Amino acid sequence: MTTLPRGFTQHVANIGVKDDTDDFVVVTAERPVACAALFTKSRFAGPSVVISRDHVSNGVAQAVVVISKNSNVATGQAGYDDASEVATRVAARLGADRRDVVVTSTGVIGRRYPIDRVRAGIAALPPRPHGTDAVAAATAMMTTDTIAKVAEATVAGGDARVVGMAKGVGMIEPDMATHISLVFTDAAVTSSDLDAVFRRVVDRTFNCVSIDTDTSTSDSSVILASGDAGPVDLDAFEVALDAVCLDLTKQIARDGEGANSLIEVHVDTAADVGQARRVAKSIVNSPLVKTAVHGGDPNWGRVAMAIGKCSDDTDIDQDRVVIRFGTTEVYPQVLDDAALAALSAYMRSDHVVIDVSLHTGGAQATVYGCDLSDEYVRFNADYTT
Amino acid sequence: MTTLPRGFTQHVANIGVKDDTDDFVVVTAERPVACAALFTKSRFAGPSVVISRDHVSNGVAQAVVVISKNSNVATGQAGYDDASEVATRVAARLGADRRDVVVTSTGVIGRRYPIDRVRAGIAALPPRPHGTDAVAAATAMMTTDTIAKVAEATVAGGDARVVGMAKGVGMIEPDMATHISLVFTDAAVTSSDLDAVFRRVVDRTFNCVSIDTDTSTSDSSVILASGDAGPVDLDAFEVALDAVCLDLTKQIARDGEGANSLIEVHVDTAADVGQARRVAKSIVNSPLVKTAVHGGDPNWGRVAMAIGKCSDDTDIDQDRVVIRFGTTEVYPQVLDDAALAALSAYMRSDHVVIDVSLHTGGAQATVYGCDLSDEYVRFNADYTT
Repeated sequence: MTTLPRGFTQHVANIGVKDDTDDFVVVTAERPVACAALFTKSRFAGPSVVISRDHVSNGVAQAVVVISKNSNVATGQAGYDDASEVATRVAARLGADRRDVVVTSTGVIGRRYPIDRVRAGIAALPPRPHGTDAVAAATAMMTTDTIAKVAEATVAGGDARVVGMAKGVGMIEPDMATHISLVFTDAAVTSSDLDAVFRRVVDRTFNCVSIDTDTSTSDSSVILASGDAGPVDLDAFEVALDAVCLDLTKQIARDGEGANSLIEVHVDTAADVGQARRVAKSIVNSPLVKTAVHGGDPNWGRVAMAIGKCSDDTDIDQDRVVIRFGTTEVYPQVLDDAALAALSAYMRSDHVVIDVSLHTGGAQATVYGCDLSDEYVRFNADYTT
Repeated sequence: MTTLPRGFTQHVANIGVKDDTDDFVVVTAERPVACAALFTKSRFAGPSVVISRDHVSNGVAQAVVVISKNSNVATGQAGYDDASEVATRVAARLGADRRDVVVTSTGVIGRRYPIDRVRAGIAALPPRPHGTDAVAAATAMMTTDTIAKVAEATVAGGDARVVGMAKGVGMIEPDMATHISLVFTDAAVTSSDLDAVFRRVVDRTFNCVSIDTDTSTSDSSVILASGDAGPVDLDAFEVALDAVCLDLTKQIARDGEGANSLIEVHVDTAADVGQARRVAKSIVNSPLVKTAVHGGDPNWGRVAMAIGKCSDDTDIDQDRVVIRFGTTEVYPQVLDDAALAALSAYMRSDHVVIDVSLHTGGAQATVYGCDLSDEYVRFNADYTT
């Protein structure tokens, strides 16, 4: 069992949002602590995002609430009032300031909360929650996830810990934010340091995963630092935070709806990080690359196609590009039938690495995704009904 | 049977590129005629595109060659030499200048032509082809298409005709060009007029279809005008050309790999055409919207999500957006259970219209796509093997 870092406790319950599985999580500190957060840039951002963006703007928070199975998005003024009421009522139960409560939601779009049940659920929230199980909290965050996503690391040079929890397996193409990921640490880090480090780490991890190019209306990444473990070396803290967020990122990609394989795309010798990431995302998001990996079809030409799609990158010259699957060069090297058969076998593995050298400069980037299966289609053809 | 316009004849044959279906098409005029063309912007454009772009640059061509079942892309210098040889040998058989021969190719990427068979096939090309059947030519262009795509129109005010043929059902997200579409007319139009009209029409038609967001390395749209029907009113010609290209565009979307439904997305009251098209493409390309249509899942919230993804369009305000399926408003109007059931039934039809009003301005755009089915995945998981 992964426990929360010192200074944090949780309350997990079923409050009947959709069915009888846990759907309500509160993780709280004993007092207001340093906080940083990033949210979706969607023009249809839900009221939870709007309210939480405001609440974290002072770099301080005490508690994070997750309501799963209903995102409370595109629900108009009534939905905004519902989200606001959740913050107010949770704060009242905890004896906190409502502006120190961060609210996140995930699930179906366009339906109001069953607000009477939400009120009853909040009324049962203990003023001092005593749970410490991170896995139970991560489990209650799940919608279509098949596994609870938890990762932890210790900050080198002391005993400060970083514990992260995430949910999200579809509608995943974060842009400055992600799905829902909550990270807690007992390291003592100031709000401004926390914000700077978290932005850098999220950009390298959660912003480098894509399941289906669809960006959620509810993406929220939040970190709280209780300080109970005392000061830490900031570089060591960033290393630990990076490890936790990268671990969660790979868990999200591997658990992509209907996915059988984690696809890792590494682009190097690019003109800049932007170009490396554009090309890598073009590959990891290509339905034809994703279906080829799903079927073990050694159709590497689709990777060439996906690189070629980046038509604004006019410095990319097909005569200098090198494409590898794992350690096997597939272009410009010409594969014989035995090599194509070996490539097919490699593409059926549960972790496929596609490596591209552009030779336009010295930058690199890595992104994560998954194969596209008929299960993804069947699952999403029948989500609400 | 749709026949080619006056001044054009065809030769269709099987030359054994992959199997025993027709895979070789030459459509030729009796002499060099006015020509315009647009090609893929892919950085992995094939040698057929490179050579043809050069050959059409003077606004004149005599013949168009299509080799299907092999795109001859990512095949290096040898592939370039093969494509060049095709142009030279076809020109020699027809008694034409090699620079008046346009070469197009479509099929698997990364494999050389079976060049001996291609040479033998060209040797059997009659110096004066006498075929006039457009459907047979369109059929020989097919790769994974299930139907031959032909459309025709008569230019108002006379008897000039416009006949178009197209192929392409996957790897379809043209950008300044498309799949392969060949249009022939006996109207007398100058090269410069033909170029201007064709660019406008392609931008409104072929550039507004997307099957899977993947852009081919071989996209080519070519038009030749024999002039045999004499001068025409240019506006009437544009109307006829638009009708032909729009008809082909809808045929492509409806025949999308594994597709059961044509999805038409219309965005109006946008700030400009670019915004209207960005939002429309975001909707028509969303895997979650496409799977919802496939399953008849009345999950209209995914359309809100897809609009929200256009996060650079900061003038889009969710409180002013209106979303309709057919004539039924689904947002902000709240649907009851009976309305949701009716929406589900509508989404199962073979032509689903999604209509969005942004209220950011006065521009509009329409794009075409298709649903995403498990058949698409199964088909593309096993294309080359």
